[in-house]
Amino acid sequence: MNKIAIAIHGGAGTILKSRMTAELEKEYGRALENALQVGWQIIQSGGNSLDAVETSVCELENNPLFNAGRGSVFTHDGKNEMDASIMDGKTHNAGAVALIQNVKNPIKLARLVMEKTEHFLLAGDGANEFAREMKIESVEDEYFFTDFRYRQLIEAQKENRVQLDHSEKGERRKEKGEDRNPKSKIQNPKSKIQNPIGTVGAVACDSSGNLAAATSTGGMTNKKFGRIGDTPIVGAGTYADNNTCAVSCTGHGEFFMLAAAAYDVAARMKYKSVSLIEAANETIEHLRLIGGEGGLIAVDNLGNLALPFNSEGMYRAFITSDSKMSIEIYR
Amino acid sequence: MNKIAIAIHGGAGTILKSRMTAELEKEYGRALENALQVGWQIIQSGGNSLDAVETSVCELENNPLFNAGRGSVFTHDGKNEMDASIMDGKTHNAGAVALIQNVKNPIKLARLVMEKTEHFLLAGDGANEFAREMKIESVEDEYFFTDFRYRQLIEAQKENRVQLDHSEKGERRKEKGEDRNPKSKIQNPKSKIQNPIGTVGAVACDSSGNLAAATSTGGMTNKKFGRIGDTPIVGAGTYADNNTCAVSCTGHGEFFMLAAAAYDVAARMKYKSVSLIEAANETIEHLRLIGGEGGLIAVDNLGNLALPFNSEGMYRAFITSDSKMSIEIYR
Repeated sequence: MNKIAIAIHGGAGTILKSRMTAELEKEYGRALENALQVGWQIIQSGGNSLDAVETSVCELENNPLFNAGRGSVFTHDGKNEMDASIMDGKTHNAGAVALIQNVKNPIKLARLVMEKTEHFLLAGDGANEFAREMKIESVEDEYFFTDFRYRQLIEAQKENRVQLDHSEKGERRKEKGEDRNPKSKIQNPKSKIQNPIGTVGAVACDSSGNLAAATSTGGMTNKKFGRIGDTPIVGAGTYADNNTCAVSCTGHGEFFMLAAAAYDVAARMKYKSVSLIEAANETIEHLRLIGGEGGLIAVDNLGNLALPFNSEGMYRAFITSDSKMSIEIYR
Repeated sequence: MNKIAIAIHGGAGTILKSRMTAELEKEYGRALENALQVGWQIIQSGGNSLDAVETSVCELENNPLFNAGRGSVFTHDGKNEMDASIMDGKTHNAGAVALIQNVKNPIKLARLVMEKTEHFLLAGDGANEFAREMKIESVEDEYFFTDFRYRQLIEAQKENRVQLDHSEKGERRKEKGEDRNPKSKIQNPKSKIQNPIGTVGAVACDSSGNLAAATSTGGMTNKKFGRIGDTPIVGAGTYADNNTCAVSCTGHGEFFMLAAAAYDVAARMKYKSVSLIEAANETIEHLRLIGGEGGLIAVDNLGNLALPFNSEGMYRAFITSDSKMSIEIYR
């Protein structure tokens, strides 16, 4: 029987111990432990990795501490638009949704896209129509409301005035015209966006050696224009292939898309024949070099895990056949 | 001075010589030649690859022969929803739009996302709102109407009755339950979708050795639920990095997403140190093995080109410093 393993994350970014209270740390710890345990129970009792990652992500989506499902941040219009994706490493089937509203568990809708349609990615009005046809559990706008998220929106809207006015756009154009050094561009093509911490994800290897990955997010506070980040993109935010690894990413989405981060871990394993841990570390180091803050969790078909990140912290937890439960936030 | 090169495609798929008339072949030939020449003029006169690929793709979008811009297919609701993406290999900046309506040249909107926003991908209502704010040229629904595309919709709707009724969904579930052989899954995870030929794209290398890629599509006939394919996905349908290559893909989008096809060519070059041509051929062979029909065009920073495909045909054309113009449809 294969060694089994599961890892989850609740987002990466500037998580400073100095800003944390002991009580809040405990809350995050409990939340991560609960989400890890529900997935672990499934693979430990012989269940499959796909059910495990979906169940763990649902648990995180139901907790307002994280920026996914219930705790999703507000868009510019005061709405909650969510993205999620899931991939099965055995069948290479995948499903994802983007810009969906009023769905309690976006990861469940992503799984329905995988199982009930010929497509990988559904977005916007169409994806919401699909949700209604599938009769998936829906919730009112109020379900997503927390004082904390609302204050985040108000703050971001104040700061954003600068980012959206014309003088600032003028500066960016000027900057582009003057800057002939490709390196400095490569350092930071999309550097000005604020990244709320709290995208969630899970990866697992079950007793048959089957891998799966799932990721879910509420996106960016104050986002406009239907922005889609890496979370619902197979190859960027989520990837799973029994021959290499399963990966779930969290961080500055635009950079993870640019780096095709989740697939890049698998590509390094396939083409360079490096281990999971080497591949995952290399991908995160590459992201650091191009200015992409964040982290990822990854598992291979021997039940090895990697949880690298280049930010101050990443909410994370794991258990394997060989190791006890571990729950960590900081470096 | 660097060798310069440009290649374009107008879609890959089952293009049978037996179904072609001499007149239609000529029309395609003229359309490809015009689109190639406008891009070539730009890089030949010292212009940059980004302007070249955008201009060539605009020309293809304006021609109703291709499934992009004016010639976009109809969705299930009789609308035209378009996707496009563009990437600059020098700055690694990218822009993409998905599910946009009434925009004359989606590739121009993708470039505005790249240059005027902090994001890579905008979709749906938000992307349409962005189009209006940018005051990009818009067109009425009638602009996209052709008898040919409308007949395609009617035909697809007739065939689709089978695909969407409950017995068929029942069969698919049963099939999933019975089939325990992962190989047969991997062969064809998303095999039942019809792929209209005609996604367009361009890649170029300019005299400074800068690479760029652009891709544009009208999506799938009769598509529902806001399906997004590989075209607007950086890493799947489009990719550009001066250190490796620029790539534009066309084919069965779900498979190109699964394979992170455009980035996979670059990954093979970086991690296996193979040539552009080897890498591009390997990616297309991998797609064939997993059941993904289609092709791609790619250029490296020495001005070498690769135009592999695993389908019956691919509308394609290229010119380089070393070679005369070539326009081809079949194998």
